[in-house]
Amino acid sequence: MNEEALEFSSSLAHDVAIFEYDVLVNAAHTLALLKAGILSSEEAGEILAALAEVRRRGIANGYEDLEEAIESEVTKITTAGRKMHTGKSRNDEVATCLRMFARDRLLEIAESICKLRRAILSVEVDAIMPGFTHMQPAQPTRLQHHLLTYERMLSRDFDRAIEAFRRVNLCPLGSAAFASTPYNIDRHYVAELLGFDGVAEHSEDAVASRDFLIESIYVASQTLLDLSRVAEEIVVFSNPNFGYVELPEEFASTSSIMPQKKNPDIAELVRANAAKLAGNLAAAMGIYKALPFSYNRDFQEMNPLLYDSLERARKAIEVMAKMFSKLSFNVEKLEEDASKGFTVATHLADWLVIKHGIPFRDAHRIVGKLAASEVSASKLSEVASQLGYSVEVNEEELAKILNPREVVEARKNVGGTAEEEVQRMKISALQKLEKDSRLVKILKERISTRLSRLRRLAASLGVEL
Amino acid sequence: MNEEALEFSSSLAHDVAIFEYDVLVNAAHTLALLKAGILSSEEAGEILAALAEVRRRGIANGYEDLEEAIESEVTKITTAGRKMHTGKSRNDEVATCLRMFARDRLLEIAESICKLRRAILSVEVDAIMPGFTHMQPAQPTRLQHHLLTYERMLSRDFDRAIEAFRRVNLCPLGSAAFASTPYNIDRHYVAELLGFDGVAEHSEDAVASRDFLIESIYVASQTLLDLSRVAEEIVVFSNPNFGYVELPEEFASTSSIMPQKKNPDIAELVRANAAKLAGNLAAAMGIYKALPFSYNRDFQEMNPLLYDSLERARKAIEVMAKMFSKLSFNVEKLEEDASKGFTVATHLADWLVIKHGIPFRDAHRIVGKLAASEVSASKLSEVASQLGYSVEVNEEELAKILNPREVVEARKNVGGTAEEEVQRMKISALQKLEKDSRLVKILKERISTRLSRLRRLAASLGVEL
Amino acid sequence: MNEEALEFSSSLAHDVAIFEYDVLVNAAHTLALLKAGILSSEEAGEILAALAEVRRRGIANGYEDLEEAIESEVTKITTAGRKMHTGKSRNDEVATCLRMFARDRLLEIAESICKLRRAILSVEVDAIMPGFTHMQPAQPTRLQHHLLTYERMLSRDFDRAIEAFRRVNLCPLGSAAFASTPYNIDRHYVAELLGFDGVAEHSEDAVASRDFLIESIYVASQTLLDLSRVAEEIVVFSNPNFGYVELPEEFASTSSIMPQKKNPDIAELVRANAAKLAGNLAAAMGIYKALPFSYNRDFQEMNPLLYDSLERARKAIEVMAKMFSKLSFNVEKLEEDASKGFTVATHLADWLVIKHGIPFRDAHRIVGKLAASEVSASKLSEVASQLGYSVEVNEEELAKILNPREVVEARKNVGGTAEEEVQRMKISALQKLEKDSRLVKILKERISTRLSRLRRLAASLGVEL
Amino acid sequence: MNEEALEFSSSLAHDVAIFEYDVLVNAAHTLALLKAGILSSEEAGEILAALAEVRRRGIANGYEDLEEAIESEVTKITTAGRKMHTGKSRNDEVATCLRMFARDRLLEIAESICKLRRAILSVEVDAIMPGFTHMQPAQPTRLQHHLLTYERMLSRDFDRAIEAFRRVNLCPLGSAAFASTPYNIDRHYVAELLGFDGVAEHSEDAVASRDFLIESIYVASQTLLDLSRVAEEIVVFSNPNFGYVELPEEFASTSSIMPQKKNPDIAELVRANAAKLAGNLAAAMGIYKALPFSYNRDFQEMNPLLYDSLERARKAIEVMAKMFSKLSFNVEKLEEDASKGFTVATHLADWLVIKHGIPFRDAHRIVGKLAASEVSASKLSEVASQLGYSVEVNEEELAKILNPREVVEARKNVGGTAEEEVQRMKISALQKLEKDSRLVKILKERISTRLSRLRRLAASLGVEL
Repeated sequence: MNEEALEFSSSLAHDVAIFEYDVLVNAAHTLALLKAGILSSEEAGEILAALAEVRRRGIANGYEDLEEAIESEVTKITTAGRKMHTGKSRNDEVATCLRMFARDRLLEIAESICKLRRAILSVEVDAIMPGFTHMQPAQPTRLQHHLLTYERMLSRDFDRAIEAFRRVNLCPLGSAAFASTPYNIDRHYVAELLGFDGVAEHSEDAVASRDFLIESIYVASQTLLDLSRVAEEIVVFSNPNFGYVELPEEFASTSSIMPQKKNPDIAELVRANAAKLAGNLAAAMGIYKALPFSYNRDFQEMNPLLYDSLERARKAIEVMAKMFSKLSFNVEKLEEDASKGFTVATHLADWLVIKHGIPFRDAHRIVGKLAASEVSASKLSEVASQLGYSVEVNEEELAKILNPREVVEARKNVGGTAEEEVQRMKISALQKLEKDSRLVKILKERISTRLSRLRRLAASLGVEL
Repeated sequence: MNEEALEFSSSLAHDVAIFEYDVLVNAAHTLALLKAGILSSEEAGEILAALAEVRRRGIANGYEDLEEAIESEVTKITTAGRKMHTGKSRNDEVATCLRMFARDRLLEIAESICKLRRAILSVEVDAIMPGFTHMQPAQPTRLQHHLLTYERMLSRDFDRAIEAFRRVNLCPLGSAAFASTPYNIDRHYVAELLGFDGVAEHSEDAVASRDFLIESIYVASQTLLDLSRVAEEIVVFSNPNFGYVELPEEFASTSSIMPQKKNPDIAELVRANAAKLAGNLAAAMGIYKALPFSYNRDFQEMNPLLYDSLERARKAIEVMAKMFSKLSFNVEKLEEDASKGFTVATHLADWLVIKHGIPFRDAHRIVGKLAASEVSASKLSEVASQLGYSVEVNEEELAKILNPREVVEARKNVGGTAEEEVQRMKISALQKLEKDSRLVKILKERISTRLSRLRRLAASLGVEL
Repeated sequence: MNEEALEFSSSLAHDVAIFEYDVLVNAAHTLALLKAGILSSEEAGEILAALAEVRRRGIANGYEDLEEAIESEVTKITTAGRKMHTGKSRNDEVATCLRMFARDRLLEIAESICKLRRAILSVEVDAIMPGFTHMQPAQPTRLQHHLLTYERMLSRDFDRAIEAFRRVNLCPLGSAAFASTPYNIDRHYVAELLGFDGVAEHSEDAVASRDFLIESIYVASQTLLDLSRVAEEIVVFSNPNFGYVELPEEFASTSSIMPQKKNPDIAELVRANAAKLAGNLAAAMGIYKALPFSYNRDFQEMNPLLYDSLERARKAIEVMAKMFSKLSFNVEKLEEDASKGFTVATHLADWLVIKHGIPFRDAHRIVGKLAASEVSASKLSEVASQLGYSVEVNEEELAKILNPREVVEARKNVGGTAEEEVQRMKISALQKLEKDSRLVKILKERISTRLSRLRRLAASLGVEL
Repeated sequence: MNEEALEFSSSLAHDVAIFEYDVLVNAAHTLALLKAGILSSEEAGEILAALAEVRRRGIANGYEDLEEAIESEVTKITTAGRKMHTGKSRNDEVATCLRMFARDRLLEIAESICKLRRAILSVEVDAIMPGFTHMQPAQPTRLQHHLLTYERMLSRDFDRAIEAFRRVNLCPLGSAAFASTPYNIDRHYVAELLGFDGVAEHSEDAVASRDFLIESIYVASQTLLDLSRVAEEIVVFSNPNFGYVELPEEFASTSSIMPQKKNPDIAELVRANAAKLAGNLAAAMGIYKALPFSYNRDFQEMNPLLYDSLERARKAIEVMAKMFSKLSFNVEKLEEDASKGFTVATHLADWLVIKHGIPFRDAHRIVGKLAASEVSASKLSEVASQLGYSVEVNEEELAKILNPREVVEARKNVGGTAEEEVQRMKISALQKLEKDSRLVKILKERISTRLSRLRRLAASLGVEL
């Protein structure tokens, strides 16, 4: 091949992400060839030893791709290598590696999400604070209630990661180029050795479908999108005009010419990464669109998008979890701002409805008129009477109604801001978190148990994998 | 508000998609206010009657949005309308409508996917055909095996639609602006009246999260992406140089100046729609990125993306299902092309491995050399011997090996192309299809049963909804 | 065609955007057929009259697309209509309409950009204000300097719009399906009648290329992206914690349940529209990717993306211009915040360099240490001496150095914040604005002059177009 | 900073792309500090020598970014390094490097586009061939006409690259963090030393705007999108069912298990890269959206998108140019297919119009009816008479009309397929190509001439840069 064409088309630079996996895939396939009687024990042992050696040395340069590189290097070590590719194609080989990469990263992402949820739920400080709509003060709320919003989103991100994992963790190996093979290879055996939950059965679907890859990127993107909203609040709320949150020194940066700065770089980068991943998703979808079956070289460009997306997501969530656990909240400023901007207006209207039976729309109008002036009991009576309602209230009672803490406590309904309800939701969130954490642990252990069997089989042939 | 600003910011033109839902949401909320003692039976009845009247009339013009329009029109009919918005905000109202829209369309999409899978599995004709990689003839395969690839993808699209549905079908109503309300509204009661499976509990999460919307668009996009590959094959394979498939007249178009044309417009448009939906997804993600909590007006621009994406997906799948059931496959041309381009080369190499114990890599080289010339038994022996192998075979035996039908039949392993294995997979696909179809039916019925209760309650107040 | 297929494939709902243009295109083509001797004056007159009539009536329903609809309706009115499509295809017809739409909207966008630039340059109030990096106070700057940043971006957006216009305003008509025609139609004559600057010469390129469409969307997207940054600042700076800018009542909204609210909805929607257009661009690119030549039905789905993008951009810029001219800036708060957060630190370091010859990196360290404590002349001397430098300064002098107004004035270099330099840049900006405004005017007039000729020719055949 | 946070936020891995540029930027800035009297000749010489040394050593690890790394390493070599950052910030430094990177790559892209255009225009073989719409045979055309379509698109891509270059090649250096500096640095001098055409004047705009970056990615994306259509045709037309084009061996690949394969990998990868770049564009836009001024750390994630996009585009165009010049076209198959599928139908209709004065719509119907049967002179007369027209033609004359070569030759109008017109367009294309090639040469020379001056100035201080 022309040199420039080779450089343009080689995937070797990115294949490093799946190097370890490809060694395991070749090892499992070798054991399957042994089981099928295509290789002798001796040949299998030699191939496995060569694979171990190749892994030690790292990826060799100058090849078109990793699959070719490994086979060639193994064959240099042992002539048995010429049999290694029996009943296997680069198509099923790379599809298998991709799924191993994706399933492991999805579980790590799920695990990091749990860490971040734990960091959020571990915040103990509470405060009455302003809730915003349109970035304008809207109604008072409670810090603990607000933080639970973060946790809720992330809990769904966790679920999506696990659902994607279940579709991903199936083994294509044995599908060859797309039309299966005439060899009697035990596909279920191979699948299990590689930690899969089963086979990606249909040979063409197994090598020529990449919805699992796109879904994995989507799941990572959605998680970072959700995180980007948390990041935005950290950026805005750490601005001194808000001053709601203070960044830990070790998660902030300073400036090369402004020595006084304490910049929320990590939050900004998380925010940017959300868009980066959405771009990766757009790229993957764009590449995939309208490709006929079965394999097309275009697929190759989807692989680095998978690697990059899942790695970025994992790192972003992980660093966010670390940073979040060290944030400090400025209770004083939060409470000070809680009632600024007449955030209790809605509650006053609600009170007019509940206490005085005024239709909500009229109560809303009364409070709307009141908003323009100094709020006082007499002014309230005056405005109400203009709209034909008699509202008698003394200043003390009014002050109580307008107290943001009272407002927040009054919202005791399901999902509301009252302390008891928030506690109930928090406990329930912690329970799901425990369940989710256990699930990830089980899934990771299942994989590693199965891979141990692969290693034991290799060991029985004298090779340490 | 300034007139241009109002025009720029009004969502009314798009709100038509959720008009019916918003009427139901207001009706359910009215019944909840009745239950909570905030409305009398008489007031509730009047509001419900007004809602029914507003629905008859259609959306009124000149309002900022649908929610305002409905409340205003109801209030014109009955002064009780001024109480309708008690304990409700546009924020939870619109979030509820969006989820009703999404859940219904997701089920319709799931249903259409089932139709298309049925159309694919109903193709009875079979043929040996060329399988392609890189759009180049690669190995012979079987039409029935190839079609199953389509079905497999769609089966996963179905699963994703249902998983999204389960996250979507939860009711935000009662969350108000984001901080809940002091009213004692029974949120579970409202949720059930509107056909939901439960409440979207946390009041801020319920109105300020839109991952359900983005996930719905993703699911629709993924399905169309998968369909776009089927569409591409229809476009390419109906080109006369291939001639593998013939379009039904009623799903093809002609030209305004080329009277002989029969164009695969539907397939082309399905293909284009896949990219359109990927663009919708990019837009939704871009809008959502880094929005602080809780509600932002930006959300409004996400709604038409939801409407458009799910409607397009539904229509595209539906029309594809209709068209697919009328495609005719040109068995003769498929079989004629099956062995063109030496597609049996891999099988010959496999035969050298199995029959003659030649290492695969060497067998591959032998066949590679053979590919350049006329294939014959003597040539094969000659080439093999050049690489040091003795391969004796007569022309008859070789012809059998090179017979694409034999090749396809030899691949009996799990997922392979042999008739028996394809039949097994097809039966298994049909079984899942039946199960999936039943599930959609059950989910749709559950919703309609619950909505019937809402209608019965309205009827008990004298209103036909 | 199957009814569902027809509904799925009809473009009629969107074609309304180019209805006027298509009437003109048919009229110009008719005049060209007359000139070429293919139509008699009588026939041409009848067709033109019919076109005028069809325009009056509006688009007829039930057709596949606008082109078919117009021809059919014209033919119902006059049998001469059967000749109207001579030497013309829907392919060149629609490409011509698209370019007319795009060129007119691009000029309108350019015009609206000029309005917004004028609104920005018309702000007369000035103030020292904090400049931010990472949303953290960084250095003091000047409101007039900051506003010029907006103008600079928009000035480039203007240039891009004009450059795109020049590539767009070329006429495809006469290219027919893609392979030209045997008729002797004067393409330059047609082009001029329709207000074009020339012909899109190559017949296949003219109907089968859509880079002009994608570029137009890009230009609109880039403009809205730039605007989204202005919008973000309006949202953040109108939050009461900043309070830098106050929205005009008629460009803000209130809440259905929070009567005190004054929400920056317009800015939020502009922000959202930037992402919407980026999504449109992604969709257009995704549709276009890898389409073989010449025409594909996929192109149809690109058209609404063009309509939507340019319309949205125009409206967003227009409403932004209106709103901007009514913003009021809170000078007091801006100046109050200007020196908060030790924003003058860099300047103090610069002073240490200039006045005391301290290497910048050391000066930076001195000021960095100072930042942690109360800044005073003695403290400065103390910290400096710790690093081995002698810095004598009295409190008065120090106060002057730390005065943000002095800081801003000291930056007199090209592009700096000093009043004189800002004035110079502002005058230069105004000059380019005048030049740009004149250019748009000239380009619009050229088009309308040419279209007048078309109308005069129609009038000479007795038809008022 | 926390270690994970540092790893997450460091840009060092990507900064390699601008390492050379950053050395030059520091050198030019050093010379400007010398000119401004802030550095002595000796200090300037030491810094330049240290920069040269740092360049030799390569990028040091463990730093947050390249700017910090270079300053630190220089300072390790000479204490004068502590003055190097005077009047400079990382913000203007990185913006300057980005623009140098972009301008050089844009010129290279423009140059590669010229190469590819030349390769296209150098194809000498001509043939009558089928033109397609909807991938269905439509009308006969001419290979040389078809190839010119490619060239036209690329010619516009060239223009866009140059227009972007003109906006890019302006120098931000001297803007510092965003608010300029109090130092009297000659910004025009610096700009010229670095090969810029002028300064990016306004200090905040210069460091806080990235439209130049997004536009550069757009230009690269548009070019690859256009190329992706060429690539698609190579993929489809090299399929043996078409067999229109044959790939050069050195630009095709084979299979690991299918030895007979000759796959169009390069074309497939070009196609995929178009989507990859569209994804990069989406990411860059998504990151940029709604960022307030001035600098935000988010910008950092845009840089690798620039590097990757322009590098990929350059390589893809370059390899395409190489491959294109070695494609061989199968004249026989092209001509054989030219009249298949009744592609001459439109011409027959046109002939009925021109020769027999039949209205086009009726002629179209006559030919449409004819399309269904065997075409003969008598059948034509018969069908025409059914619609009331008398068409007398003998078989010989009809054969001539139906001869695709005659059809193609008859289209002599501007932009048409007749040989003479194609030649005219080709000559005109070659002339523009020469002009464009010269322009790139001039622009590249201007930059290198200016950089030579920088090197001479360094040499006068005893340093070889």
